[in-house]
Amino acid sequence: MSNVLAGSEKGEVSAYGWAARDDSGILSPFHFTRRANGDNDITLEILYCGICHTDLHFARNDFGMSIYPMVPGHEIVGKVTKVGGKVTKFSVGDIAGVGGSVGSCGSCSECSEGFYVYCPKMILTYSARCHDGTVTQGGYSDNLVVDQNFAVLIPKSMPLASTAPLLCAGITVYSPLKYHGLTEPGLHLGVVGLGGLGHVAVKFAKAFGMRVTVISTSPSKKKEALERFGADAFLVSRDQQQLQDAVGTMDAIIDTVSANHSIQPLIGLLKTRGKLILLGGPAKPLEVLAMPLLLGRKMIAGSAGGGREEIQEMINFAAKHNITADVEVISMEYVNTAMERLEKNDVKYRFVIDVANTI
Amino acid sequence: MSNVLAGSEKGEVSAYGWAARDDSGILSPFHFTRRANGDNDITLEILYCGICHTDLHFARNDFGMSIYPMVPGHEIVGKVTKVGGKVTKFSVGDIAGVGGSVGSCGSCSECSEGFYVYCPKMILTYSARCHDGTVTQGGYSDNLVVDQNFAVLIPKSMPLASTAPLLCAGITVYSPLKYHGLTEPGLHLGVVGLGGLGHVAVKFAKAFGMRVTVISTSPSKKKEALERFGADAFLVSRDQQQLQDAVGTMDAIIDTVSANHSIQPLIGLLKTRGKLILLGGPAKPLEVLAMPLLLGRKMIAGSAGGGREEIQEMINFAAKHNITADVEVISMEYVNTAMERLEKNDVKYRFVIDVANTI
Repeated sequence: MSNVLAGSEKGEVSAYGWAARDDSGILSPFHFTRRANGDNDITLEILYCGICHTDLHFARNDFGMSIYPMVPGHEIVGKVTKVGGKVTKFSVGDIAGVGGSVGSCGSCSECSEGFYVYCPKMILTYSARCHDGTVTQGGYSDNLVVDQNFAVLIPKSMPLASTAPLLCAGITVYSPLKYHGLTEPGLHLGVVGLGGLGHVAVKFAKAFGMRVTVISTSPSKKKEALERFGADAFLVSRDQQQLQDAVGTMDAIIDTVSANHSIQPLIGLLKTRGKLILLGGPAKPLEVLAMPLLLGRKMIAGSAGGGREEIQEMINFAAKHNITADVEVISMEYVNTAMERLEKNDVKYRFVIDVANTI
Repeated sequence: MSNVLAGSEKGEVSAYGWAARDDSGILSPFHFTRRANGDNDITLEILYCGICHTDLHFARNDFGMSIYPMVPGHEIVGKVTKVGGKVTKFSVGDIAGVGGSVGSCGSCSECSEGFYVYCPKMILTYSARCHDGTVTQGGYSDNLVVDQNFAVLIPKSMPLASTAPLLCAGITVYSPLKYHGLTEPGLHLGVVGLGGLGHVAVKFAKAFGMRVTVISTSPSKKKEALERFGADAFLVSRDQQQLQDAVGTMDAIIDTVSANHSIQPLIGLLKTRGKLILLGGPAKPLEVLAMPLLLGRKMIAGSAGGGREEIQEMINFAAKHNITADVEVISMEYVNTAMERLEKNDVKYRFVIDVANTI
């Protein structure tokens, strides 16, 4: 507890969350401090935090860059309890959301366009070192101190638990659709994988007026895809005849799958000038034949997130079109079980921790 | 000679060229006929024809789709000797150019935008079946009958021999630069491979005002790249230190290499949101790690040619900026030797057949 006391003496904020301590990834209660609320900062009382698959990877140090103890969580919705003297975007009592990044260099070309997520010096919401050397801690905790530029305003009319995942999953699918001009009604979009990202991608694409085909290895997801999420068609990716019938029919494909898989059949599904957008990051190198890309002027693009104004725009668009994630709300104590279930894809479609009521 | 006579009787045009007869690819003199000049057609007296590497592949049936006897050649410049009744774009005496395609469906979305080259029913300039079942023959011959929509006007001020390669090599590099927004002064472009395509890419990029780095396995090409073509820098792709020093510095890379090679280091050279454009088509699948594409919002795109208006625009731009290919003009009789030298990359930088004077 000495850290907490020391923190309080400097104006730092006492915080309490659940942290992974080592690469077992097992989370347990943890007391820590956050920086004092600066002139440009807001302090949030965290209400809800989604569990992104990345949290599981980081908790277990799958990327080799984890800093322990680590409080995960970057799909954060909370109530503003304090604002710094230079804060203009928020007032006490507002609902704010925070996603995958909480800092950046502020001066590179990406930052100048508000695309902090692509800044080479971008600071992750947790498990990253701040400019002052302190380590960031995420949203599986009772509060957060964050620069106002890394938070967005959440309309109070939105259902907050199911809005939390939009801060990561939502912008991850929304941003590349905008970036690649894939918001035109009538365009045909394939969505590979009907998980946390995929089900939100279907919702946004339908709201844009696109025709959506869900592509999945699991025939069992057909009913949900069509009836629950309003997809127009369903394609079983292991069915060669279905693949053949769909060759050259899609303007673009959003591939949300992180597991190793072949993308060559997906390129075949694209029309001329079609775009395959990768959001998952399979560890094994993808194998790509050049000639089909050349002859069809096709492209393969990656995307990892969106810009500051774009996140606000996405939230506003979601509010207007009643788009939220389908979530299973859990208590803080359930988080380790949730991680185990997440590893087995046993979730429809996103776990969200009811932080305020259960921490 | 009976075919020639029969052709004449139907209004068909007698033609004489050099053809490959089998997959040895060896070319020899060949008499044949072309269709009668229709209402929308023009007839050219061919003056020059460039030798594209694709000609070598087709002559030897490397793609398994060759039709023999085959007169190669799709970098054609000639003088208009006849125009059909509905021809509006050309007059007798004009100089016209013809590239890689001479027909298409005319009704698909690609055709409607003039991008015949991406029409699924596009008809290659040689070794392809026309709508009427006849087989197309290319520019290693004394004349050509072609739809006016597949020909462009060549300003008479241009040096015609070195202009011929622009009809294929020129548009192949020009079109993706336009398509991907890579014509802004100050952008940094990498050009992989300083051959027929690469040396023209450097010229166009410099005319657009870009900063150009030539990337090559051959240190011996440095002097030419910098002094002859005006590149700003030269990077030996086998030099790890040079690669490391250039990481994250390029807005885009044009990769002209058809031989199997690794593209992963090239992706590393790109800035955030950088674009790797493939123009060569290595037979072996490329290996691509997804994560660097995601984190840098990078893309890999293929391109195979440009649109009708774009080819004319490219020619006009080349005329204005004095851009032509660096060529070695040869006689028709030399063509088999030229093919052997081409296979060994022993050409600076494009062979062009002086058809009119040597056939």
